[in-house]
Amino acid sequence: MKQGYRVKSAEILCVGTEILIGDIINTNAAYISTRLAEMGINQYHQEVVGDNPDRLRYYLKNALDRADCIIMSGGLGPTYDDLTKETVADLMGRELHMHERSLQRLESYFAGRKIKMTDNNRKQAMIPDGSVVFDNDCGTAPGMAVEDEERGKIVILLPGPPRELHPMMDNAVIPYLSQFTESVFFSRNINIFGMGESTVASIVDDIMQTSENPTVAPYAKDSEVRLRVTAKGSDKEACASLCDEMIERIRQTEVGACIYGVDTSLEEALVARLKEKGLKIAVAESCTGGMVSKTITDVRGSSAVFDGGVISYANEVKQQLLGVSAHTLETYGAVSEQTAMEMAEGVKKRMNADIGIALTGIAGPDGGSEEKPVGLVYIGVSGKAGTFAKELRIRNNGRDYIRVSATKNALHAAICEAERA
Amino acid sequence: MKQGYRVKSAEILCVGTEILIGDIINTNAAYISTRLAEMGINQYHQEVVGDNPDRLRYYLKNALDRADCIIMSGGLGPTYDDLTKETVADLMGRELHMHERSLQRLESYFAGRKIKMTDNNRKQAMIPDGSVVFDNDCGTAPGMAVEDEERGKIVILLPGPPRELHPMMDNAVIPYLSQFTESVFFSRNINIFGMGESTVASIVDDIMQTSENPTVAPYAKDSEVRLRVTAKGSDKEACASLCDEMIERIRQTEVGACIYGVDTSLEEALVARLKEKGLKIAVAESCTGGMVSKTITDVRGSSAVFDGGVISYANEVKQQLLGVSAHTLETYGAVSEQTAMEMAEGVKKRMNADIGIALTGIAGPDGGSEEKPVGLVYIGVSGKAGTFAKELRIRNNGRDYIRVSATKNALHAAICEAERA
Repeated sequence: MKQGYRVKSAEILCVGTEILIGDIINTNAAYISTRLAEMGINQYHQEVVGDNPDRLRYYLKNALDRADCIIMSGGLGPTYDDLTKETVADLMGRELHMHERSLQRLESYFAGRKIKMTDNNRKQAMIPDGSVVFDNDCGTAPGMAVEDEERGKIVILLPGPPRELHPMMDNAVIPYLSQFTESVFFSRNINIFGMGESTVASIVDDIMQTSENPTVAPYAKDSEVRLRVTAKGSDKEACASLCDEMIERIRQTEVGACIYGVDTSLEEALVARLKEKGLKIAVAESCTGGMVSKTITDVRGSSAVFDGGVISYANEVKQQLLGVSAHTLETYGAVSEQTAMEMAEGVKKRMNADIGIALTGIAGPDGGSEEKPVGLVYIGVSGKAGTFAKELRIRNNGRDYIRVSATKNALHAAICEAERA
Repeated sequence: MKQGYRVKSAEILCVGTEILIGDIINTNAAYISTRLAEMGINQYHQEVVGDNPDRLRYYLKNALDRADCIIMSGGLGPTYDDLTKETVADLMGRELHMHERSLQRLESYFAGRKIKMTDNNRKQAMIPDGSVVFDNDCGTAPGMAVEDEERGKIVILLPGPPRELHPMMDNAVIPYLSQFTESVFFSRNINIFGMGESTVASIVDDIMQTSENPTVAPYAKDSEVRLRVTAKGSDKEACASLCDEMIERIRQTEVGACIYGVDTSLEEALVARLKEKGLKIAVAESCTGGMVSKTITDVRGSSAVFDGGVISYANEVKQQLLGVSAHTLETYGAVSEQTAMEMAEGVKKRMNADIGIALTGIAGPDGGSEEKPVGLVYIGVSGKAGTFAKELRIRNNGRDYIRVSATKNALHAAICEAERA
């Protein structure tokens, strides 16, 4: 730990008129917050200010009175209204000077792209005296930390674009800040599907109440539940081992049966499971219209386990491409267990896959009836041991919600099938 | 306009520890901001505070010193740490009393869902004296406006969940606030595809510089450009007519050829165009793995124009389901103009559609070569007049970016084909 400094609390101050007028959603604040929380740095307040140096100065000054560290994002660009650096330097009594390494990096960035570098761009390499500079591997503006040793305060400036900010936060800011924290924090997320948040919480309530290190906290999101296990210790390895013990303990509870992975997503867990077992999957979709296939192929390297799928909105497509029988469609309807099963079998056969997954349902807003309401979805699963279907009655929170929920259920059904195979 | 009051400036104060620790992204602030900007209400600052009444009081008090109106979201729930209402009432010297209409609404909400109502839930119907109450059509917590007539300040409290906040903002808060603004503001967005932001800006530069009402401003997002036209006037109709004149003027410039719609999205514009012309579309996807079909079927009522699609990751699927010839795959490869054209023809025929769209490319991160780098995508279009393919060389900003950009290009190509048909 660096001499004399402690960072116990931080505030986030994002700069940009485009956030204030709602033109972009402030995802940077959420990203930085998550990382700070993992380090055990307290956050009581965050704010957004426009590209106005007077107001920026006012809010920054107030924030510095409250927190040990202020993390700012935005306003490091090349244009005249990018004034974050100048305002911070002024407030903290520093002068800006050309930073040679940053200038060289900028020159080679532009040379590599065969773009002429302007004087505006050179401005991006001007740094307040005595700053710690964070190289930008994904853009032009370097980040920096300006330390006020007397007051024990740190101001960190990061570029606004998320694809520049995320790697800089992970690779430079976290190692930098860890000099000023007494312990290391490390979290792992247990991924749970098929059990509600309140049920999960009631089962692990005793563990949550009695465990101080690591701590365990539940979070619900998009029909999934996560349990975040956070350990505090002298180094990352010690924390990881504390987390792993706790994860093992939670696996032994009734929650265990619904845990599909750790630090993963349904689609990543599915692709990994299929790879392990050397299985291929094929998908036939009606109400989700491609969302399941799209989600599987979001995963890098999914082509090893996924050859293709069919989107069968119309009954003719269900018949011709998937071999669903006219009899089934007439007798039971397109939204039925029977159709889901025949779709799953059909796509498995058609794609020469090991597992076939099918979805048919009513995503709304139209098309529902008393007997078959909006939100009714059947998932067909065809594997080595046979074919079955399950019925979902998804709450009608709108078309998007129903489609996302159906997709997650289908991915989970596929994981279970892969485990059985 | 209501007597004696003016709302010229507002600040947004979101309440919730889950935002501070990065567990949820603050989309409410962006939503509220957009609506306020449209009304011409200035915003210079926004902030987030945790579920802590002392800090909440401190920040709210400061915000009231700066702005005419504070809009708060969150902390209206039934649990003990939901304290927004109590804190506002205390700061503004009001008592909380049971609000009969809200209580009745709550009772019928729970009765309708056959859930027992607890005392905690009754707490949600307690309202500071003299407030204007906004009914919640999508949840339990009513919103409210607490007016301080002496100081000419208004505090508006809204529920945290976006699906409750959005309709309340649109249906109750905007009409309420419009009593306190001198003019009405109204915006329309011109949707542009296939022209970069700087080109668009340079073409309409003269219009942007000289036009005061309506104003015109460019925004770039996800490979699209929007021109936002905002008019100020005595009523909505007068503003709309000013906007329409400006839109017509911009259509006459070189930008006109790249305008695909107004206040729409590529997928909505495509579905509308296909409906108008009575055409059906079918999609064959390789690198996008279902994203194009998923995006089309995001649109309500898309089943009228979309019967289905094929996701052909593997070459065998391209051959067997789409009829791409082995010769083409061997000679030109799966990622080629020729394959894209045969996929488009094949899916059109297979689905008995009027337009077939196909995508084949390299989304990465692996699979690229010097000759066929990551980001190379071919879009095949097969319509009444024949079949062609176009080559895209998408910047390698990652797998997601490439897939989204390819999807948008495919949707745009389909719009152009529908217009030609």
